[in-house]
Amino acid sequence: MDFPDRLHAYTTRAETALDALLPSATTRPARIHEAMRYSLQAGGKRLRPVLALATAELTGQPCVDPLPAAVALECIHTYSLIHDDLPCMDNDDFRRGRPTCHKAFDEATALLAGDALLTHAFRLLATQYAANPTLSHALTLELSNAASSEQLIGGQMEDLLAEKKSDATPDQLEFIHLNKTAAMIRASLVMGGLCAGLDAPALDTLRVLGRELGLTFQIIDDILDATADSATLGKTAGKDAKADKTTFVKLHGLDGARRHAREHTDAALAALAQLPGDTAFLRQLVETMLVRKS
Amino acid sequence: MDFPDRLHAYTTRAETALDALLPSATTRPARIHEAMRYSLQAGGKRLRPVLALATAELTGQPCVDPLPAAVALECIHTYSLIHDDLPCMDNDDFRRGRPTCHKAFDEATALLAGDALLTHAFRLLATQYAANPTLSHALTLELSNAASSEQLIGGQMEDLLAEKKSDATPDQLEFIHLNKTAAMIRASLVMGGLCAGLDAPALDTLRVLGRELGLTFQIIDDILDATADSATLGKTAGKDAKADKTTFVKLHGLDGARRHAREHTDAALAALAQLPGDTAFLRQLVETMLVRKS
Repeated sequence: MDFPDRLHAYTTRAETALDALLPSATTRPARIHEAMRYSLQAGGKRLRPVLALATAELTGQPCVDPLPAAVALECIHTYSLIHDDLPCMDNDDFRRGRPTCHKAFDEATALLAGDALLTHAFRLLATQYAANPTLSHALTLELSNAASSEQLIGGQMEDLLAEKKSDATPDQLEFIHLNKTAAMIRASLVMGGLCAGLDAPALDTLRVLGRELGLTFQIIDDILDATADSATLGKTAGKDAKADKTTFVKLHGLDGARRHAREHTDAALAALAQLPGDTAFLRQLVETMLVRKS
Repeated sequence: MDFPDRLHAYTTRAETALDALLPSATTRPARIHEAMRYSLQAGGKRLRPVLALATAELTGQPCVDPLPAAVALECIHTYSLIHDDLPCMDNDDFRRGRPTCHKAFDEATALLAGDALLTHAFRLLATQYAANPTLSHALTLELSNAASSEQLIGGQMEDLLAEKKSDATPDQLEFIHLNKTAAMIRASLVMGGLCAGLDAPALDTLRVLGRELGLTFQIIDDILDATADSATLGKTAGKDAKADKTTFVKLHGLDGARRHAREHTDAALAALAQLPGDTAFLRQLVETMLVRKS
């Protein structure tokens, strides 16, 4: 399969699993499960599940089913978007071209749906890997660190704090990018690697890859916010400049930001070259991230 | 030790562990860790940790340290209070006689602090029981089920839905009590039992005990809301009647509610009698729950 077909195949597998591994929309109380499904099934790139699935298949050997781990990653990502969109945070009415969860339902339901997706991620790792408690534990350790107050949530908090002052530093921006974005991308790769039974050096290489890919991803996000229109992005564009937010573009200019993104992409490709197995798909995915338009 | 001394000793051990097992208040970003600690250290009965610790020591044999599990339970309980207090939910300004998290900080910080405590619960189970992945997995399974959209969060969602209509049914009220309250009390007992290595029949008995104790606890909560003053409760009293909320008191009257509470307490004591070891402390705790004034 060529790259687009394989990307499509991973995305489809992830979306089928999302549907299968969430409580049905009629499970009592129906409203919370409808809201969880509304946001989880809103589309998007499914980058984190795709990274987990592709990494799990790197060696071409049979591995433990990575789909529950992939779904757990998307549950965490989606909960963070639901809560970020709330009025007390970014106050966004649209996400991926559809009303955000609190607009489609209400604030209280969106709050609880976010809580429920966060909880469901850990529940999935516990229920779906019950036959292999050691793997279940390793996956839970990885995900709970990445999603914690020192990483994902810490990055979000620092982002809020940075918004309140105009003199955010490059150090602060790096903290935000590493934790708000790179941590979960790194966890996606490592959790895929854990399902494949990769050894410690390979897992360490995946961590380096995750960091570099995550930084690329976030710099491109900043560039797109500054240059693309809302229809292409599927979310409100130009928000950063409007909020006078410190971004990579504001600190380094568009050209500087593009140069940094290229450097991190090169570092990601160098890490990839050290991994076992067939890395062609991940290599193309990394290159695609650098030139993405949405 | 008599009952009050032992209760005090368990509470003190739990509070020391809460302090030790949370990131320090200066961990970056400091604001999120200050908010997590503010709410976690606001006092309260520490019922869930106490239940876990007492159950872990039932047999008097050395057991795996139950303190991280006890802290994880309190993290989940506290996150649910922080989110329940938010303006889009109950909109409460005071909790345990102090400003609620969003009043002491701000809404966005309180939202993230709740998310972070929820995540930290699972992180603690993964990091602190890393030497025993099988136990870590069993604890995570128990806690993630209890805190899920089908139990704790489901009960909260059903509670919100019931508030919107005046004809909430006894069946709906039972669903709310079982899931919003009893589920986490049951998980506290079972997680203590898992640390003690209790066998499956004993764990099943703990589940029955948790259900009955949880129902007692919630009925008494409804009675206190109708009869006590805010200063005694440490939170706003009379809110249920003001909101014309369907409670046990509204459905069954004060006498009927008290009779139901007594029946559930008797069922809890009957379950306790089937447990191994010295159940004197838990027996007194169950009796105390029935006559509590706050």
